[in-house]
Amino acid sequence: MELYSAIDWSHAFAPRMERMRASEIRELLKLLARPEIISFAGGIPDPALFPIDAVRRAYDLVLADRELGPASLQYSISEGYEPLRLWISQYMARRGVTCGTENIIITAGSQQGLDLLGKLFLAAGDIALVSAPTYLGALQAFGAYEPRYLILTPESSQARTICQETAGGRVALAYVVPDFANPTGETMGEAARRGLLGITAEAGVPLIEDAAYEALRFEGVPQRSCLALDVERCGHIDRSHVLYCGTFSKTISPGLRVGWICAARNLIHKLVLAKQAADLHSATLNQMVLHRLATSIYDDQVAKIVKVYGARRDVMFDALVRQMPDGVSWTEPMGGMFIWVTLPVHLDGAELLTASIREEGVAFVPGRAFFADGNGCNTLRLNYSLQSEAGIEEGIGRLGRLITRKLTGAMWRPRGHSRLG
Amino acid sequence: MELYSAIDWSHAFAPRMERMRASEIRELLKLLARPEIISFAGGIPDPALFPIDAVRRAYDLVLADRELGPASLQYSISEGYEPLRLWISQYMARRGVTCGTENIIITAGSQQGLDLLGKLFLAAGDIALVSAPTYLGALQAFGAYEPRYLILTPESSQARTICQETAGGRVALAYVVPDFANPTGETMGEAARRGLLGITAEAGVPLIEDAAYEALRFEGVPQRSCLALDVERCGHIDRSHVLYCGTFSKTISPGLRVGWICAARNLIHKLVLAKQAADLHSATLNQMVLHRLATSIYDDQVAKIVKVYGARRDVMFDALVRQMPDGVSWTEPMGGMFIWVTLPVHLDGAELLTASIREEGVAFVPGRAFFADGNGCNTLRLNYSLQSEAGIEEGIGRLGRLITRKLTGAMWRPRGHSRLG
Repeated sequence: MELYSAIDWSHAFAPRMERMRASEIRELLKLLARPEIISFAGGIPDPALFPIDAVRRAYDLVLADRELGPASLQYSISEGYEPLRLWISQYMARRGVTCGTENIIITAGSQQGLDLLGKLFLAAGDIALVSAPTYLGALQAFGAYEPRYLILTPESSQARTICQETAGGRVALAYVVPDFANPTGETMGEAARRGLLGITAEAGVPLIEDAAYEALRFEGVPQRSCLALDVERCGHIDRSHVLYCGTFSKTISPGLRVGWICAARNLIHKLVLAKQAADLHSATLNQMVLHRLATSIYDDQVAKIVKVYGARRDVMFDALVRQMPDGVSWTEPMGGMFIWVTLPVHLDGAELLTASIREEGVAFVPGRAFFADGNGCNTLRLNYSLQSEAGIEEGIGRLGRLITRKLTGAMWRPRGHSRLG
Repeated sequence: MELYSAIDWSHAFAPRMERMRASEIRELLKLLARPEIISFAGGIPDPALFPIDAVRRAYDLVLADRELGPASLQYSISEGYEPLRLWISQYMARRGVTCGTENIIITAGSQQGLDLLGKLFLAAGDIALVSAPTYLGALQAFGAYEPRYLILTPESSQARTICQETAGGRVALAYVVPDFANPTGETMGEAARRGLLGITAEAGVPLIEDAAYEALRFEGVPQRSCLALDVERCGHIDRSHVLYCGTFSKTISPGLRVGWICAARNLIHKLVLAKQAADLHSATLNQMVLHRLATSIYDDQVAKIVKVYGARRDVMFDALVRQMPDGVSWTEPMGGMFIWVTLPVHLDGAELLTASIREEGVAFVPGRAFFADGNGCNTLRLNYSLQSEAGIEEGIGRLGRLITRKLTGAMWRPRGHSRLG
């Protein structure tokens, strides 16, 4: 028993905090600590693939350098470390985006990119266009600026209608994850990208492109990014309305918290002010180390990850085909970390999770958390980047048996029978 | 000549961005790069004092560790690395604040602490109580949430009046830098702290205590922090309305971007949600390294810095006494990094800076930027942490001669004479 009572400060919070809730995923990730659970819940890289020796060597070399060493521990500019921005601008150029260092700002992962972009564009009551489902972290980042969400569907006619008839609010931004999206694993085709670019450009709505998974392509031809297509459309990055959020979190390491935004120079200038207000700058040393790693191991590291995750995707996909009963469907991602499963409408993902942990020791994320509109109760997100191939085989087997039982039970229940009773 | 024209996106920005301006200090810091300038403009540590060998060893040991190594590069919890929070809670306890790890959240420097607290408490139009002058970074962080500022004066009767009669807005927070404040170097006495605590507690106004410089005391008896006094007043940290922002930036390294907030547990819970939305968590590796450094070299490192900065403060103070003409006054800080100079009212700090750089090669920060109410035109901030004792002696000599010339010129000018003409 506690001998004091905490004071309730909820009266002191700004209204934006009322909408901030602990993430279901975050709570779920605590399950990862239990070794007996086969977890498909995480959205995180396999730590066994981190280039730890190269990272260790890079820290040692930067800190041992007579000039870089002291500078790496000092305050630095809010834009970020110039040589790293140069590497990123060259990386973007390789992907069809001609740009310079003044088009790049370094952020604390792409999550901070989303927060800064929310700060830049969203006033309370503004409309943010998002897909459903979409990345939960984007809903959390934008949520702090109190937007209303409208759902972007694949039909571009609908997007045009929304952008034109703003229904009582300014459409302040649109947000997409075009490649191997979290949570669905799906990729937008070029026609859909061009359609969205045209509509948002015409309506003057900034388009945020979250490219977190873009580098993790296992097969097929790389799509041109929305930013690359838009630079082609309008002739120069400084005329583009696309803000591209990149990250080293899925390729080198999420623990170093380094990502970037690539966009028109006058948008970057404003973001630099927002970044300065938020945390002055990202860790200087980590930026210098990432520069060293990017210039030495980037391509090899991506190739290594892609090979391992691609094989795991294959195993998960094959296991789903073999283990899932009729009525269950799933996406066929060509990259990234996730497969998205749709159950028959009468099955609830959150209820299934409770049963799955208790009866089968298998964890995943119920899909509803990814919907700004409260839909998606009958969906699940499965992550394959963190489990071994054997673990995936075993876990999908268990999950298939559980869903089969539930479907069978559910089919019988309406008639008053129980197969087990 | 550029062959394209950038698009003006200012119509797309949220209203909060209109108030965001490039910091004068930031622009000034670019002058640091010119070696011929003796700069008192920075607010940054001397990189020669960074414990670079210990930092290098710590990175190597963490990355070489079989368990810590991979974990250091992985995503981690938004609260921050538990062993570091434990060390901080023990550090706070040594300073009179009995607390546990659940009272601590790790932030990207104390700057992010201020941003998260603005997000937590400020709605547009709310009143933030700040002193004038105050830390510019706090005005920038809070500014994103569109408060109005009211000035907190040393007279507690005035603070009581403001808290009670809110003049058309909710008083959402009060902000103080009680020890060796940036920019003045001044320290609040215990009576003033208790007075402010009583008034804000009574009015239900959260009090943000920015303790960035607290550890840098050269002489005299340490003051108890507002949080320590408040825990005594109300019996338990979970009943306190004080949010203490600490940092390793002034003691170990600003480039690693690690600070913390210590506060009531239910406030920390909300801040964890805000942190998660902002950047998921601070760099895992840097937190592990700081834990190692804190548990090994913290006290020695602080003693080393205090000795050097204290000697530099002495040199600057003595030089001011010898070199400044009548009519110029300055603070006598017992710690921190700054001396605050007040010129006769008809001298303008910004104009003096232009002349000082051109005529004397000496830089400082004009004081006006630190005033939320636009006052302070006749003030300057001088930093002594970054210059050698010889540089301080020389720079203050030049500045004294310049101010003497200006005062003499200014005295003659009203009579239509010119000493030089």
